[in-house]
Amino acid sequence: MPSTNKINAQRLLETIHTTALWGAKGRWGEGPTETGVCRLALSDEDKSVRDWFISETKSLGCSVKVDEIGNIFAIYPGKNEGIPTGTGSHLDTQPTGGRYDGILGVLGGLEVLRTFKENNYVPNYPVALIDWCNEEGARFPRSMMASAVWAETLPLQEAYEMKSITETEVKTVKEELIRIGYLGETPASYRLNPLAAHFELHIEQGPILEDSKKKIGIVQGGQAFTWYKVVLGGKASHTGTTPLSARSDALLAASKMIVRGNEIAHEHEGLVSVGIIEASPAVVNVVPSEVMFTVDARHHTDEGLKSIIEHVIKDFTAIAAEGNGTAKSKPINISIEHDFTSPAIHFSRDCVAAVEAAAHEVVGKEDTIEIVSGAGHDSCNTSFRCPTSMIFVPSKDGISHNPVEFTNPEEIADGVQVLLNTIVNYDLSRKN
Amino acid sequence: MPSTNKINAQRLLETIHTTALWGAKGRWGEGPTETGVCRLALSDEDKSVRDWFISETKSLGCSVKVDEIGNIFAIYPGKNEGIPTGTGSHLDTQPTGGRYDGILGVLGGLEVLRTFKENNYVPNYPVALIDWCNEEGARFPRSMMASAVWAETLPLQEAYEMKSITETEVKTVKEELIRIGYLGETPASYRLNPLAAHFELHIEQGPILEDSKKKIGIVQGGQAFTWYKVVLGGKASHTGTTPLSARSDALLAASKMIVRGNEIAHEHEGLVSVGIIEASPAVVNVVPSEVMFTVDARHHTDEGLKSIIEHVIKDFTAIAAEGNGTAKSKPINISIEHDFTSPAIHFSRDCVAAVEAAAHEVVGKEDTIEIVSGAGHDSCNTSFRCPTSMIFVPSKDGISHNPVEFTNPEEIADGVQVLLNTIVNYDLSRKN
Repeated sequence: MPSTNKINAQRLLETIHTTALWGAKGRWGEGPTETGVCRLALSDEDKSVRDWFISETKSLGCSVKVDEIGNIFAIYPGKNEGIPTGTGSHLDTQPTGGRYDGILGVLGGLEVLRTFKENNYVPNYPVALIDWCNEEGARFPRSMMASAVWAETLPLQEAYEMKSITETEVKTVKEELIRIGYLGETPASYRLNPLAAHFELHIEQGPILEDSKKKIGIVQGGQAFTWYKVVLGGKASHTGTTPLSARSDALLAASKMIVRGNEIAHEHEGLVSVGIIEASPAVVNVVPSEVMFTVDARHHTDEGLKSIIEHVIKDFTAIAAEGNGTAKSKPINISIEHDFTSPAIHFSRDCVAAVEAAAHEVVGKEDTIEIVSGAGHDSCNTSFRCPTSMIFVPSKDGISHNPVEFTNPEEIADGVQVLLNTIVNYDLSRKN
Repeated sequence: MPSTNKINAQRLLETIHTTALWGAKGRWGEGPTETGVCRLALSDEDKSVRDWFISETKSLGCSVKVDEIGNIFAIYPGKNEGIPTGTGSHLDTQPTGGRYDGILGVLGGLEVLRTFKENNYVPNYPVALIDWCNEEGARFPRSMMASAVWAETLPLQEAYEMKSITETEVKTVKEELIRIGYLGETPASYRLNPLAAHFELHIEQGPILEDSKKKIGIVQGGQAFTWYKVVLGGKASHTGTTPLSARSDALLAASKMIVRGNEIAHEHEGLVSVGIIEASPAVVNVVPSEVMFTVDARHHTDEGLKSIIEHVIKDFTAIAAEGNGTAKSKPINISIEHDFTSPAIHFSRDCVAAVEAAAHEVVGKEDTIEIVSGAGHDSCNTSFRCPTSMIFVPSKDGISHNPVEFTNPEEIADGVQVLLNTIVNYDLSRKN
């Protein structure tokens, strides 16, 4: 059966590039499609692409529901009534976003439905194509916000009250949902608006597929990760008048910790990264007295992550205690504050198997690789509430959240065909 | 002769604390004198203390000259005409300054003149008490500005055009000199307005005297120092999706350099300090692509400083080239930009001997220590043009450029008495 449903790669690319005009930003080449996209959640540009999305899916025969937190469910009818098989991702972007992150999952899903339509293919059960609201968390600072509300891991009211951080005139999520007309009536709830499964096509946002020369990543789940904030307190002193032995140099201590954190990551085969560092008083000839830096640690198992963090805390504390490594130097005060932890995600065996089978059909087993998602995705939230899995396609140079983010047309076509075959195979296997 | 000229420590302290009201800021205790001072160069507060300084020195019989860059020369008459023996420092402060840095040198000099006056002591030659303008470089970003103009190492016009950086409405030095009435007519020139010598009493701004339990530092000269700016270019990548081996982590490389810089400083018995670091894009889950940090390197010899810098450049370049220490990681781009170098300063043997003799008279040899200044001072500029030396008194906990900056009354009294004896001894030794 799947062989009769061939997606139209050209049509899909045209849709990707046309809709990228809603928020086109960050030109990186001469060509008409060589810009990124800045389409912040619930902005005017987001409203435009949403309006278009509803119009397009309705023209394919979908019924469209908008839920209380702005998620859009476009439901393509099946032969039988029943809970829909879901597929989706997000149409919002980072301020310096590209034209594939999230977008490919939604527009790839649209191409699946268009292919069904033109082939007069009717699945056994309805297929819901979903635009999850505010996945990026760039404007309203909570990533995967609305899929978390749907999964009931984030209270609706808390999401409503979230405040924008990208503009001087602060707005709440609820105000902006109302303003753009997307505060819907469907309950934002996996119980009251359930999905039978959720499949998400996404760019890898990393270099593993490209480096291993594979076309499709069969995503097994998501890494466990945790964020900490480390604050060091030393003593500001004059760089010319203060001997090394008399210093409490918070930046030197921080530097030792950053180097050690990287070593720990290697030892545990995980990841430890420092993305933000701030030192004060920030004067050329003053030894920094205070340094704040963030720690982002990841491992594909919860146990591995726990070991990494214990190791980090032990070694950072020891570095602070030894001061600047001289007999006389004073200890640095250290506070290591936990921000949050996201446990490891294990996708549904059935759903992973459905992706695997489809990927083998489309590109052959040798061009696939099992992979663990390093980034968070809406599928992490859906995985708590329904069988879920994901399909990755390569990211050129592993780059994402950047206007030059790129996946080539053949890779996109392969990914969308795998998504179609996955949905069809899964639909055919459903007992109810 | 010096024994009859005993300074009045109580009078001096009262003057220090009274004048500290012009710009009092940064309360750190309950007592009336427990604040710092914020008296930026050419501000209203600076004008107030200058006006008072001129009035006070005139009341002692001084003739007062203001030069073209705002330096004030209050000349106490001697038995003979001739080029004055100079003493001075600065009355401006850092935004978060204390009440001793610079101020002690000017008001200590004032106490010397007051002591002369009340003892009817007349030196052989005139003594010039100088308030050097804008030593701190906090408001107009060039430290030791006006003594450099006097020394003709900084063109007058360049100093005039310097712009303020501490206020939104930018002003030039010349505009502010005119506004507060301190654009004088005396040439700002060591040739046209010469000094026979320059002695400067200053707080150490470091912990060496305190740690060695000495009362007076006999300053031999100033460290050589140099400033560099290092800019690293890596690749921004997602902390969750980018394996360690695929990263070009600019912050990790910077951290290794900062640690290595400190090791190099130990190896060469010099100083290497990083006061400013900035990393971007500064997002918790993005590996930093660009890092800028400053390097401040110091050694008491020019040759030592050269060795340190060569070592720093070699090792930093090697760290950048090795990427993140994995076989696969890409090199980090590095640019190491020289800002400026201040060569080692060697004070006049005669002047150092004069300070040494006076210090031995006042506190005894065992309570003195030979020291090299870690910070820049107006005396560094005068040393290029006339015999110069300095006297240091202890800084509590080595702290300076901070409201809690403190030197106790006995230490202050000792320092000012050493200054007086130095000036008297030097004056008596002058042949013309």
